[in-house]
Amino acid sequence: MAFLIIQPIGKRIQVDPQISLLEATRQAGVELVSICGGIGICDSCQIRLVRGQLTAPSQEEQAIFSAEQLSEGYRLACQACALTDATIEVPKESLTTVQRLQIEGTATEVALLPALDWIDISVNPASLDDLRADTTRLRESAALFGWQIQVDPRFRFAPAVLATLSERLRAQGWTGRLVRRGEEVIAFLPVGSKVLGLAVDIGTTKLAAYLLDLETGETLGSAGEMNPQIAYGEDVLSRIAYANLHTNGRDELQGRVVGSLGKMTAGMTQSAGHSCEQVLDAVIVGNTAMHHLVIGLPVRQLGESPYVAAVGEALQVPAEKLGMQIAPAAGVYFPPNLAGFIGADHVAMLLASETVERSESGDTTHPVVAVDIGTNTEISLIFPAAERGEVRVLSCSAASGPAFEGAHIRAGMRASPGAVERVQIDSSTLRYTTVGDQPPVGICGSGILDIVAEMLDNGILDRTGKMRAGHPLVRFGPHSNLRGELLVAPAALTGHGKDILVSREDVHEIQLAKAAIRAGIDVLLDEAGLSAADLAAATDVSFIVAGAFGTYIYLPSAIRIGMFPNIPLARFTQIGNAAGMGARQMLLSTERRQAAERIASWIEYIELANHAGFNRYFMQALFFNKI
Amino acid sequence: MAFLIIQPIGKRIQVDPQISLLEATRQAGVELVSICGGIGICDSCQIRLVRGQLTAPSQEEQAIFSAEQLSEGYRLACQACALTDATIEVPKESLTTVQRLQIEGTATEVALLPALDWIDISVNPASLDDLRADTTRLRESAALFGWQIQVDPRFRFAPAVLATLSERLRAQGWTGRLVRRGEEVIAFLPVGSKVLGLAVDIGTTKLAAYLLDLETGETLGSAGEMNPQIAYGEDVLSRIAYANLHTNGRDELQGRVVGSLGKMTAGMTQSAGHSCEQVLDAVIVGNTAMHHLVIGLPVRQLGESPYVAAVGEALQVPAEKLGMQIAPAAGVYFPPNLAGFIGADHVAMLLASETVERSESGDTTHPVVAVDIGTNTEISLIFPAAERGEVRVLSCSAASGPAFEGAHIRAGMRASPGAVERVQIDSSTLRYTTVGDQPPVGICGSGILDIVAEMLDNGILDRTGKMRAGHPLVRFGPHSNLRGELLVAPAALTGHGKDILVSREDVHEIQLAKAAIRAGIDVLLDEAGLSAADLAAATDVSFIVAGAFGTYIYLPSAIRIGMFPNIPLARFTQIGNAAGMGARQMLLSTERRQAAERIASWIEYIELANHAGFNRYFMQALFFNKI
Repeated sequence: MAFLIIQPIGKRIQVDPQISLLEATRQAGVELVSICGGIGICDSCQIRLVRGQLTAPSQEEQAIFSAEQLSEGYRLACQACALTDATIEVPKESLTTVQRLQIEGTATEVALLPALDWIDISVNPASLDDLRADTTRLRESAALFGWQIQVDPRFRFAPAVLATLSERLRAQGWTGRLVRRGEEVIAFLPVGSKVLGLAVDIGTTKLAAYLLDLETGETLGSAGEMNPQIAYGEDVLSRIAYANLHTNGRDELQGRVVGSLGKMTAGMTQSAGHSCEQVLDAVIVGNTAMHHLVIGLPVRQLGESPYVAAVGEALQVPAEKLGMQIAPAAGVYFPPNLAGFIGADHVAMLLASETVERSESGDTTHPVVAVDIGTNTEISLIFPAAERGEVRVLSCSAASGPAFEGAHIRAGMRASPGAVERVQIDSSTLRYTTVGDQPPVGICGSGILDIVAEMLDNGILDRTGKMRAGHPLVRFGPHSNLRGELLVAPAALTGHGKDILVSREDVHEIQLAKAAIRAGIDVLLDEAGLSAADLAAATDVSFIVAGAFGTYIYLPSAIRIGMFPNIPLARFTQIGNAAGMGARQMLLSTERRQAAERIASWIEYIELANHAGFNRYFMQALFFNKI
Repeated sequence: MAFLIIQPIGKRIQVDPQISLLEATRQAGVELVSICGGIGICDSCQIRLVRGQLTAPSQEEQAIFSAEQLSEGYRLACQACALTDATIEVPKESLTTVQRLQIEGTATEVALLPALDWIDISVNPASLDDLRADTTRLRESAALFGWQIQVDPRFRFAPAVLATLSERLRAQGWTGRLVRRGEEVIAFLPVGSKVLGLAVDIGTTKLAAYLLDLETGETLGSAGEMNPQIAYGEDVLSRIAYANLHTNGRDELQGRVVGSLGKMTAGMTQSAGHSCEQVLDAVIVGNTAMHHLVIGLPVRQLGESPYVAAVGEALQVPAEKLGMQIAPAAGVYFPPNLAGFIGADHVAMLLASETVERSESGDTTHPVVAVDIGTNTEISLIFPAAERGEVRVLSCSAASGPAFEGAHIRAGMRASPGAVERVQIDSSTLRYTTVGDQPPVGICGSGILDIVAEMLDNGILDRTGKMRAGHPLVRFGPHSNLRGELLVAPAALTGHGKDILVSREDVHEIQLAKAAIRAGIDVLLDEAGLSAADLAAATDVSFIVAGAFGTYIYLPSAIRIGMFPNIPLARFTQIGNAAGMGARQMLLSTERRQAAERIASWIEYIELANHAGFNRYFMQALFFNKI
C-alpha cells in the first residue's frame, strides 16, 4: 500500500498500487470529473504529480499532454497508479464539487479616501503649429482641468504609462482619463473608465480576493481559491524549506500564488464587464511567511531560530515587480508585519474589528481578546493603559498546528463536501451533519472539536484525554486501536465505504492544539495582570474570534474543551474573514492604512518560546478541566 | 553585381556574387580576421546578415553555428556570397583594426552633489531577545549612525534590495553600507564599497560611456562602441520605421543598445576592480529618437509629421525596467528633450559648454552659436534678452543628412582606418592623410569637406558646384562620370586597388548638407535680429562646434564652403563630446540636473519646416559664394 496525499483538499489515504488514482480518490470520497468513464480519452480527470512516482504515462496520456506538461507532472487520474508514497494536486476543474471557502467578513462602512485620483481631459491635437511633446500637452491640459501640475517638477508619468501613452492618446481621439497616485500618473484610460482596486487575503490555505470600485466603494466581485502553494507544503515551515532547498524555489512559490491571483482577478473583472488594466491599486494581507513569499523576499531567516522577518514596515511594491496581471503601474500596498509569526493579516483583522481604535478613543474600557485560529493562531489582548487615550496591545503567536485543518487527524480533512462538521452524542447515539449534506468521508476542524467536547460530556474521555471503555460507540483493540477509538460513522453510511473513527491519538492532537491556544491567551492575560474574569465581567463583547475556522466552530464546544476561557457566550463574537475586510478598508482609504500602521506601532510582541510562564500554562491547558 | 552595405562601418560596395564576403570586404578595404585563411574551419571571420540573401550555409558553417545562430543570420564571411543586395554587420571581434571613436570632451570641474548618499553601519544580530525584523533593525541603527529615518514613514527599502537584504546582512556579519537615493535605500553593500555611477551618450552612430566614482568624481573608465542599432537603419527615421514595421521591433532596438551598454559597463567595472552591482546611478543623454528607443517609448509619432516627442520632461527610470545590467534598484536620469529633433544630448551639450549660464549671469554679453553636427544638426543661438538676467535660447534642427557620416557619397565611409580625413590640392598635386595612416579605402566627412573647399580654391568647381574641365585631377566621361570626377587616390595606391573618386553628385550631397546647416544658423540669427557680424564682433568665443565630427573638421574648409559664417577663427571653439561631458556633470551633481532642466525651459524651438524664411536661406546657401 502506498500513502497518497490529495491536495489542495488535504486528504490523506492509503492506496493500492493496482488501482488507478481515479478509483483511489473516489474510494476516499473525492469525486473527480470523469466524462469518458475512466478510459483515458477525455481529459477531465487531470491531476498533477507533486511528489513521488506514478506508473509511466499511457499512450492515451501521451496523446493528450505535451512533453512539457508531462514533465510538469500532469497526468490523467484514470491512467496513473501510485508506485510510491505520493502527493497529487487536483485542479478545481477536475473536482465535481467545490470546496467551501469563506470570503465574506462582517462588512464595515469606511469613508472613501482612495490612494488615487483621476480626471478626464481633452487636448489639442499635435500639429506643425503645436509641436509640444505628448506629455507636455497632457500636463498643460491637466492644469486647465484642475490638476495643478504644470509647474510642479515632481509630477511625473510612470514609465509603464509612457510606453503606450502616445498610441493611446491618438487612438482615444486626444482625450482620456488620467489616473494619479501621489505625484505619479499611473494610467491613461478612455474617458469615463471605472477605476478599480483589488483587496487580497493570502492565507496559508486559502486565497480570498475582492474587486472594488474605488469611486463608489462598491464590491464588484469576490473570489476564493485554495492557495496553490499547498502542493509545496501544508504549513509555512515546509514551504520555507521548499524555497530554501530548491533553486528558484522562491520564484516558483511566488509565481504560483501570483498566477492564481491573476486568474481570480481576470475572472472578477471580466464578470464585472471591465479589464485588468483598470485595476490600479491593490492591498494584500497575509501572515509573515505568505507576505514574504508573495513579494519574493528572503525566507531562510523566517524558518530558522530566532525566526525574524526580513521586513517589518508597510511596503508599497510595483505590481509589475510582483508579476501581477493588473495595470503595470499599479502599486500594491502591504501593511506592516509584526514579527516572524504575527503578520499583516492580524493587523488587518485588528483594524477591521476596530478594537484598538475603540480602546484608544475610550469607547471600550474593558480588555478584549482577539484570536485568529490557524496553523499558527495569532492572539492579541487589547486593554486601556494607565493613561487615558493610551492603549496597550499584547500579541503572541501560538503554534496550534494543522489539526484543525484536518492534518494529523486520521480521518481529518478540510471543510470540503462530505466533511463531518457538527456532532452530538446522545448517550449511545451519535448524530452528525456534513458539509454539503454529502455522505461523510472525513472530519473537519469544527467536527473534531464537537466530538471531543461530546466525548467529555458523555464521560468517554477522562481529564487526561484517555478513552474509557464501556461506551457502545467506543471499541478497543486488538482488531482496532489498543488505546481506543470512537465510531463516528460506520462504513455502510460513509462515502468511501470505510468506518470513520476518532482515536486516542486524534484526541491528543486536539489537546496539543487547544493547549497552545489557551496557554497563549493565559500568558497575555498574565502579562497584563488580568484574568478571564475580567473578560467575563465586561459589559460588551470581550472575545473576538476571526477567520474562517473561527466562524464555523461551535463556541460551547471550544469552551468545553478549554480552548477558550469559560465566559458568557454573549461576550463572544465571530467576525469571519476580518483580515480580508481590513484589506478592503485599506484599499478604499489611505486613512485606514495609516490606522493599520498606528495599530502595528502599538503592538508589543510576546515570544511564547521565550516566555517564563508559557510551559506551566501549556501543561495546565493540556488537561480537560471541569468548567 | 550586388550592392553590399557593411555595418557598423557604413561602407557601401558593389560585390561580385562569385566571391566570398571575406574577399569582398577585403577588396573594400575592410580587413576581417581570418585565422584559417578562409577555409571555414576557424570562426574568426563571423558576420551577421541583417538584410538580403546569401548563399546557403556550408557544411563548415553548420558545424560552427547552432541552428539558432544561423536563424539569427550568423555566418562566416569566407563561406558566404551575396545573392542579392544585402546588409551585413561585422562584429568588432571580427575586425583587424578598431574604428576611432571619440569619447573624451573638454573636462570641466563640477562641485560634487550626487543624487545618492551612504553610510556604513553595524547592527546587533537577531536573537530570541531581539526579534526585530531585519529592516527595523537597520532603520534603527541607521538613525544611530546619523540617518534621521527612525520615525520618518517615507523612508523605505527598494524591493530589489529587500530581495537579498536578509542574506547579505548575515553574510556580511551584520554590517554593511546603506546607499540611499532620496527616501529610498537602493543598495546594501559590504562596508566601504565604492559607490559608482554611469554616464552615457547614445549617439545615432556611436555610444560613449563613462564610469565615475561618485565619492571623488574621478572617471574610473571610459568606453566607446558603435551603436548596434545601426544594423537596423543608419538614420533615426529608418530605425523608427523598423520599430513600427516589426513585431517586437521596438523591444529589439531597445535590447540591442542596452545589451551593448551592459558589455561596456561590465568591461569598465571589471577593469577598475569593481562589480556592476556597485553602479548605483546613471545619466543617459541622446537625441530624442535614441532617448525614446532606449527607454522603450512609442516612436511612431516621432516618425510622422508633425514629428512630436512622446516625452518632453526629464525622466527618472528604474534601471531594472530598462534591463540595464547595473544595480537593480539604480535609477537612470534622462534630461529633458526639447522637440522631436532636439534631444537631451543637445541640452547636455549646452550645459557642458556653460553658454546659457554665462549669458544668464552676464559673464557673456554677446550672442553665441552652438552646433552639434550629425545626421540632424542641432543649432542653438544664445543671447542676452532685453532684461538683465534674462536670456533667450533659440534652437532648431537642420536635416543635414548622413553625408558627413560617409553615406550618399560614393567613396564615403566613417572615420575608420584608411579613411581619407585631410586633403590639400596644390595645383596638380593632391595630398591626403588617412585615419591610422593606412592605405586609403574611402573618404570620411572631414576629408570630403576639405576636398570640396580645395576644389573651390583651385577653381575646379564653380559657384553652383559644377565641375570644370581642364584640371589634371579631373576627368569626364564617357568612360568615367559624364558630369566629372576628381581623382583623390589612384588604384595603385589604395587599400582595395580601385580609384578613389569624388563626383559631381558627391559635391551635390555636400551642398545639400552644408546648406541645411547654414540656413539653420541664418534663420536663428534672423529671428533674433542678429547677423554673422555680431558673432564676428564678439570679444570672446561666439561659435561652439561640438561632437566628434565637429572636432575633426578643418574649420577653414567649413568656412570656405559656406557651412559656417565667415568669422575670425579665434571666435570658434571645438569642444568635442560635450554631450558626454554634460552627462558626467549631471551624474556627479543634482544641481547640474536642475541646471539642465532650467536650460531646457529657456529654449524656444524653431521648426524650420514651418519657417517662412527657411527656403530662401537654404537656396542661398546651396551655392558656393565668395568669402
